[in-house]
Amino acid sequence: MAKSDIEIAREATLQPIAEIGAKLDIPADSLLAYGPHKAKVSFDFLKTLQDRPDGKLILVTAINPTPAGEGKTTTTVGLGDGLNRIGKKTAICLREPSLGPCFGMKGGAAGGGYAQVVPMEDINLHFTGDFHAIGIAHNLLSALIDNHIYWGNALGIDQRRVAWRRVVDMNDRALRQITSSLGGAANGFPREDGFDIVVASEVMAIFCLATDLEDLTERLGKVVVAYTRDKRPILAQDLEAPGAMAVLLRDALAPNLVQTLENNPAFIHGGPFANIAHGCNSVIATKSALKLADYVVTEAGFGADLGAEKFFDIKCRKAGLKPDAAVIVATVRALKSHGGVAKDGLGTPDVEAVRAGAVNLQRHIANVKKFGVPAIVSINHFVTDSDAEVAAVKAAAEEMGVEAVLATHWAEGSAGTEDLAHKVVALADSGTAQFAPLYPDDLPLWDKVRTIATELYGAADIQADQKVRNQFKDLEAAGFGHLPICMAKTQYSFSTDPALKGAPSGHAVTVRELRLAAGAEFVVAICGDIMTMPGLPRRPAAVDIGLDADGRIDGLF
Amino acid sequence: MAKSDIEIAREATLQPIAEIGAKLDIPADSLLAYGPHKAKVSFDFLKTLQDRPDGKLILVTAINPTPAGEGKTTTTVGLGDGLNRIGKKTAICLREPSLGPCFGMKGGAAGGGYAQVVPMEDINLHFTGDFHAIGIAHNLLSALIDNHIYWGNALGIDQRRVAWRRVVDMNDRALRQITSSLGGAANGFPREDGFDIVVASEVMAIFCLATDLEDLTERLGKVVVAYTRDKRPILAQDLEAPGAMAVLLRDALAPNLVQTLENNPAFIHGGPFANIAHGCNSVIATKSALKLADYVVTEAGFGADLGAEKFFDIKCRKAGLKPDAAVIVATVRALKSHGGVAKDGLGTPDVEAVRAGAVNLQRHIANVKKFGVPAIVSINHFVTDSDAEVAAVKAAAEEMGVEAVLATHWAEGSAGTEDLAHKVVALADSGTAQFAPLYPDDLPLWDKVRTIATELYGAADIQADQKVRNQFKDLEAAGFGHLPICMAKTQYSFSTDPALKGAPSGHAVTVRELRLAAGAEFVVAICGDIMTMPGLPRRPAAVDIGLDADGRIDGLF
Repeated sequence: MAKSDIEIAREATLQPIAEIGAKLDIPADSLLAYGPHKAKVSFDFLKTLQDRPDGKLILVTAINPTPAGEGKTTTTVGLGDGLNRIGKKTAICLREPSLGPCFGMKGGAAGGGYAQVVPMEDINLHFTGDFHAIGIAHNLLSALIDNHIYWGNALGIDQRRVAWRRVVDMNDRALRQITSSLGGAANGFPREDGFDIVVASEVMAIFCLATDLEDLTERLGKVVVAYTRDKRPILAQDLEAPGAMAVLLRDALAPNLVQTLENNPAFIHGGPFANIAHGCNSVIATKSALKLADYVVTEAGFGADLGAEKFFDIKCRKAGLKPDAAVIVATVRALKSHGGVAKDGLGTPDVEAVRAGAVNLQRHIANVKKFGVPAIVSINHFVTDSDAEVAAVKAAAEEMGVEAVLATHWAEGSAGTEDLAHKVVALADSGTAQFAPLYPDDLPLWDKVRTIATELYGAADIQADQKVRNQFKDLEAAGFGHLPICMAKTQYSFSTDPALKGAPSGHAVTVRELRLAAGAEFVVAICGDIMTMPGLPRRPAAVDIGLDADGRIDGLF
Repeated sequence: MAKSDIEIAREATLQPIAEIGAKLDIPADSLLAYGPHKAKVSFDFLKTLQDRPDGKLILVTAINPTPAGEGKTTTTVGLGDGLNRIGKKTAICLREPSLGPCFGMKGGAAGGGYAQVVPMEDINLHFTGDFHAIGIAHNLLSALIDNHIYWGNALGIDQRRVAWRRVVDMNDRALRQITSSLGGAANGFPREDGFDIVVASEVMAIFCLATDLEDLTERLGKVVVAYTRDKRPILAQDLEAPGAMAVLLRDALAPNLVQTLENNPAFIHGGPFANIAHGCNSVIATKSALKLADYVVTEAGFGADLGAEKFFDIKCRKAGLKPDAAVIVATVRALKSHGGVAKDGLGTPDVEAVRAGAVNLQRHIANVKKFGVPAIVSINHFVTDSDAEVAAVKAAAEEMGVEAVLATHWAEGSAGTEDLAHKVVALADSGTAQFAPLYPDDLPLWDKVRTIATELYGAADIQADQKVRNQFKDLEAAGFGHLPICMAKTQYSFSTDPALKGAPSGHAVTVRELRLAAGAEFVVAICGDIMTMPGLPRRPAAVDIGLDADGRIDGLF
């Protein structure tokens, strides 16, 4: 029987974090250790790297996710190890997992099999405290808003129009909608409120897009927290909140260094939602890694329609990053799912279904090329995959002019990604990348959304009712027309219908609402039900999690 | 002009934490570093110390606090430095400050002047993440309660009788009373709820009283989270919550090591409220320090009526600690306040007022002796104190058969506590301590409260209405009669009236409510308005807190 992820992780021999840092020539005294196997890299050291050339940037993205699983994080780790194996100085950059979902259904998010980052328990739980810092900085602003109203409300905040909810790093549906300030005059003015999970906080998005502490503070100040009765926006800086918030975030903003099972360096820093936010690790981590390594492998949330698009159009645009290659992860099982096979039939060979589902992969290949980034497909191998099915995926990729490579890192670690690594190096070093965002800054917001929907989703057009159309106009008029769009739609389909698998075309994308993230500097276009506070399942993972007699963590996967 | 605390702290030369650990013979690899100047001491190492003899335990307590300030933490730090200065291997044990109040009015809680623990910004903010871990463990249990109700409520929880609120580490009055689970069926069953600040969580009290991870888990399981319609208690273990909560608390439970300005070792670990909880640092930190040092100086919250009593009757009773001496901190200014002088007159010499107020000090001296612990008074010197006033304090102490020593650590560091240190050593080494709790375990709960009130507070008797008397009976009947009492009353007076200074006698103490803390293993007797969620002032400290151009923290005092 195959070993569980945690069993494999426990058998790993971790190196002291100073040795991992040394692989990137980080001096030991520039590492702020959090125990023996985690460290933050000091800003003072990072500042000295400004003039170094950047390494090559490789994005790992995927087809639309299915219940079959794709293994994007696993591939990022496996490819990073493969590149190191073939002698390339490589670092990977991942998002930090959210603690709350570990106690629900999801399990950890630190890779799997022989392609994991460690110490996995730490990474999945408190890690270096970044999310706690983000949560408390967010909630300080919340407290300052209600406190301002309580003490006379000099700014004239309309308590019906507070736009800043509270956050907790927990799946807690009971907090989605509340009334606060009950209990009489001493507790303030009752109003409707609610909690989001920490990863959905705009502070998280800001944290991940900020280039330094100054930029962070400035962005925090621009957050719109509420409106007056005459709909004038009230900003965080009007409450004099950004300084204290930045103080709470200062230490967290330094990137975290850990290692893979094969003792290669991994930066894990920041983790914004991939629907109402942009779903990539921090700009600071990626930029630091590019100064320290010759190759940097990073991933973006969900499928390429959401994750890669936002990575390119938001993160790369804003941070001036130039990706050199993209790896699109697919599995035979997931393509069968896109080809119409139900979950319990995914283990049965079905070449026709793979061919039918491969249209999803092909659309993503075409899309990535539209950003000027050369692509390669990585087939994340499962033991049930037949040779004919694998051949069908390769053929589908070749039709699009790209190569598909079988990768077996889950079972074999870096030995299973050597071939992929060589080909990714060739692609990244080919000089063929001509990265450009999909749309220019000065395109109107409506046209930006329309471009994404028609160019990438295969939609015929976008639509919105008059109220939402007015939101577009209002945001343009208020001077936010230059911001990029952050699409919030289902991750399961190119359309807004999660059941529409494959590569649907000609559909309409309905924009239901726009939300301004003035500090993060994007406009969220909501095209479906977006959940910003998950719930726990009937039997939460929490009930199976505990400490064994040796104080080790059981039940966390 | 005198330097500010933060200016003094910044001028300090900190030693690497491994050097601080070496002073207590802690091997470097038993320190889990959190940056260069903070570390947790590993459980594996602490387990090896079991058979070592304990050092001497010295409690620092105080007269009833006044707006003038007493300087208990400052004295704890100064005395620890003084003991080290005279060649005694000494560690101090302090509570961790709560982050929330730093952004309100209070400022930091890491000592002051030349008697501080450092790095003060870290200690006052996230430190090693303990409070974040406690908060999220608490809120996981909250989420599991509502989730259980949502998925069918097999245990029959009466949602009107949920006894477990939520927590946040922030002064946020808007969350004191809320209604949760609004918004329709998908969000659960609406009910009344509210948030406390993290330090008021029973998880915090449990954390500070637990002797190891097993004890922690067992105590978490016993927490009463709700009642059924027929008033049967529902425990955390009924929800299978303790394992996951313990996982979240595992790393936090190892004690934190930092240093004083004079590079002496300081354990700072845990920080429960001193009203609805027992107000002492963790048992694990104190016990570890006793194995590692020859002298351990620790403090308890508020004045000796609350802090020392709970330290003796709850912490020492439960953990089997035997204190060897007590230092009672007083200031001339505070005694003048007890003698009836208003705040703006405290700078004017007034020997008569000092004499009048000294009855407060004398009552505390007598009380500490009732526990069989020899005492000494430390006069925390202010420049405005006249010689005659100081002499009056010394005379008042002598009347009670104890010595009073002038201490000038705030201005001079350990040079100002040499005399105190020599006398404390003499007292602790005298072998005169015959510690015993004030009341036996088997005394009925009512009589326990009565004993505290009459013996220590000078009250004639206690009183309660029939509903509360029934609570006493119900708790006895439910098998909780053996638990110690945790008094929750104003810290400003021996009575329940905060305005009654000095040493009132013959008053009645009204018990308004009992609260069971089954996991912490005490019964809280509430004798006044106890605030478990502070608010922010009109001009919160947060607005003056920020980062300077070098990324240093400004405005945090």
